[in-house]
Amino acid sequence: MSSKFSLINEDNGARLGQIITPRGIIDTPTFMPVGTAATVKALSVDQINQTNSQIILCNTYHLYLRPGTERIERVGGLHNFMNFKKPILTDSGGFQVMSLSKNTKITEDGATFNSHIDGKKIFISPEISIEIQKKLNSDIVMVFDECPEYTKDKKRIKESMDLSTRWAKRSKTAFGSNPNKMLFGIVQGGIFNDLRKESLNYLEEIGFDGYALGGLAVGEPQIEMFDTVEQISSFMDKNKPRYLMGTGTPGDLLGAVKRGIDMFDCVLPTRTGRNGLAFTWNGKINLRNAKYQSDDTPLDPDVNCPASNLYSKNYLNHLINCNEILASTLVTWHNVAFFQNLMAKIRNAIKINKFEEFYNQHYETLNS
Amino acid sequence: MSSKFSLINEDNGARLGQIITPRGIIDTPTFMPVGTAATVKALSVDQINQTNSQIILCNTYHLYLRPGTERIERVGGLHNFMNFKKPILTDSGGFQVMSLSKNTKITEDGATFNSHIDGKKIFISPEISIEIQKKLNSDIVMVFDECPEYTKDKKRIKESMDLSTRWAKRSKTAFGSNPNKMLFGIVQGGIFNDLRKESLNYLEEIGFDGYALGGLAVGEPQIEMFDTVEQISSFMDKNKPRYLMGTGTPGDLLGAVKRGIDMFDCVLPTRTGRNGLAFTWNGKINLRNAKYQSDDTPLDPDVNCPASNLYSKNYLNHLINCNEILASTLVTWHNVAFFQNLMAKIRNAIKINKFEEFYNQHYETLNS
Repeated sequence: MSSKFSLINEDNGARLGQIITPRGIIDTPTFMPVGTAATVKALSVDQINQTNSQIILCNTYHLYLRPGTERIERVGGLHNFMNFKKPILTDSGGFQVMSLSKNTKITEDGATFNSHIDGKKIFISPEISIEIQKKLNSDIVMVFDECPEYTKDKKRIKESMDLSTRWAKRSKTAFGSNPNKMLFGIVQGGIFNDLRKESLNYLEEIGFDGYALGGLAVGEPQIEMFDTVEQISSFMDKNKPRYLMGTGTPGDLLGAVKRGIDMFDCVLPTRTGRNGLAFTWNGKINLRNAKYQSDDTPLDPDVNCPASNLYSKNYLNHLINCNEILASTLVTWHNVAFFQNLMAKIRNAIKINKFEEFYNQHYETLNS
Repeated sequence: MSSKFSLINEDNGARLGQIITPRGIIDTPTFMPVGTAATVKALSVDQINQTNSQIILCNTYHLYLRPGTERIERVGGLHNFMNFKKPILTDSGGFQVMSLSKNTKITEDGATFNSHIDGKKIFISPEISIEIQKKLNSDIVMVFDECPEYTKDKKRIKESMDLSTRWAKRSKTAFGSNPNKMLFGIVQGGIFNDLRKESLNYLEEIGFDGYALGGLAVGEPQIEMFDTVEQISSFMDKNKPRYLMGTGTPGDLLGAVKRGIDMFDCVLPTRTGRNGLAFTWNGKINLRNAKYQSDDTPLDPDVNCPASNLYSKNYLNHLINCNEILASTLVTWHNVAFFQNLMAKIRNAIKINKFEEFYNQHYETLNS
């Protein structure tokens, strides 16, 4: 069985689909929890599975630095290493080269930088990134790209976009052909619609199994992100999955689905979970707040996850107050389950052609 | 149904039994994981249950200070608060008053001390301790006792033991009568066999549902502890459970079972688990050690726990190296499962009258 995408329904701009892979089906729109270092932070694999997550994302940059590819390749890849049997998407490391490492130098060849862990000098090229992702046995591989910081300097963005295009071509060549895996291109171009379109055209000429939007969710106002997504998605191939990288809040997800996006990843539910911040249908709540000492209700009785329906806010407030590890686990677990619950309801709304209604009902609260 | 103990088999000194409570059966010898602040650190309740733990211990002192009894009593006690439905034993706080709090003053009435959390002045008497434990809805309640530090000063131990005896009587009166619950006395007397015997006699006169040995496992050599246990257990009522508080290593457990002990609790498997130290049938292993980078085998394929049989030492070493929360969870989870596996094998050996053989086979390795 090879990997493919099929579009099931469109409801105005919103799309219902499926990515079918040998490791399982991914219903879209989908949210991918982030498992940076081969662990979705604070969750066991059983717990991840209980959230109905159908795919997770792991970070090539982090895994290349630690533990190194050899220890993962030796056991057949990430699925065996971390004991997660469903599909895994790996990013290419491009974003982390910019955001985490030090003394980064970009040449036509690739990126040279110092590891943020031990300062060691490292070189990653498109070919090396793809080779690492192959060793990790990633199901969805991303091209290696340059990710410029958020800027209105169009010349800088254009140069970077052109380099990323050349790297995308080299990534495709390095990937070769593997019907069980997918290779995604990454559309760059910042907030400039003409550059985005140019980038997309180049990538479609090369030909990829899916197209990601990179260089967004990097600090620009939400409305700019939405505008950029709306403009570019109207030009994108309907029969390929569209992935908005690094996004986002529940409000971001709703707004981007409305504008035609199929895939998301973000550290938000896990990072905030470790800090006692929980997502609910009534907005975010800070469980450290003293008022939860007298609230014996669970976070959400309707979300089918033990962390959501079995533990009271009173108890969670106590665990957070005592710096108990279980606090991080339970709130993270609930948050990921909540995000998946949101995605399931979004999919259902698209299926019955009522996404607009659903959006209007929830956007304001979930975007607060 | 009321709570009771029944002795099933004796194999030389080792005893097989059952404590039957309305919340479930506890097969003895049993090991109780410690859930100090209403959480067995780093484990969800599902994970605790998967280790086949039949009872856990919670700390009255910690819970009284934080979150306070009101927030637990309001939901009907600890089982509902922390969502653990099996039996819970609570200690009385006596040990923590000595070991954790500051400026402790002991009078005939009780103990006055400053909270180790915020310095607040607190008073606990036998009556208050029992009242707290009732509010926690504890299944096995411990008398409030004075726990002197390890010393060879017999006069100091004698005075303390006498005070603990008077407090035990007051604890019994405060406990009253409740067939669903058990109240345990605590035998004191340090390493002095005559004092231990005197303490036991007094307590048996008062009459309890079980008898604990306190003031051991506080720094004395293992052989002294074993000697004390052996001496006193020969005088203990065969038809009451015997609990060696705060113990211990796998070697301690084996040696104390041999000398007639039925119940144990210890932070060892959880505390060491958070530091990457794993217990195995071949002794302790430090998963931080670089040699585990190339060990793709699980901690124990025969222990029926995901943490023991699904994750490689290579992966665990990686998680520890990255300070991932999952490292604490998985190694703790395995350690508790290993301790329960050890207890299950001990019980089986007693059942088939082969405990001596089992002891000889494992004591040296497990005590290293």
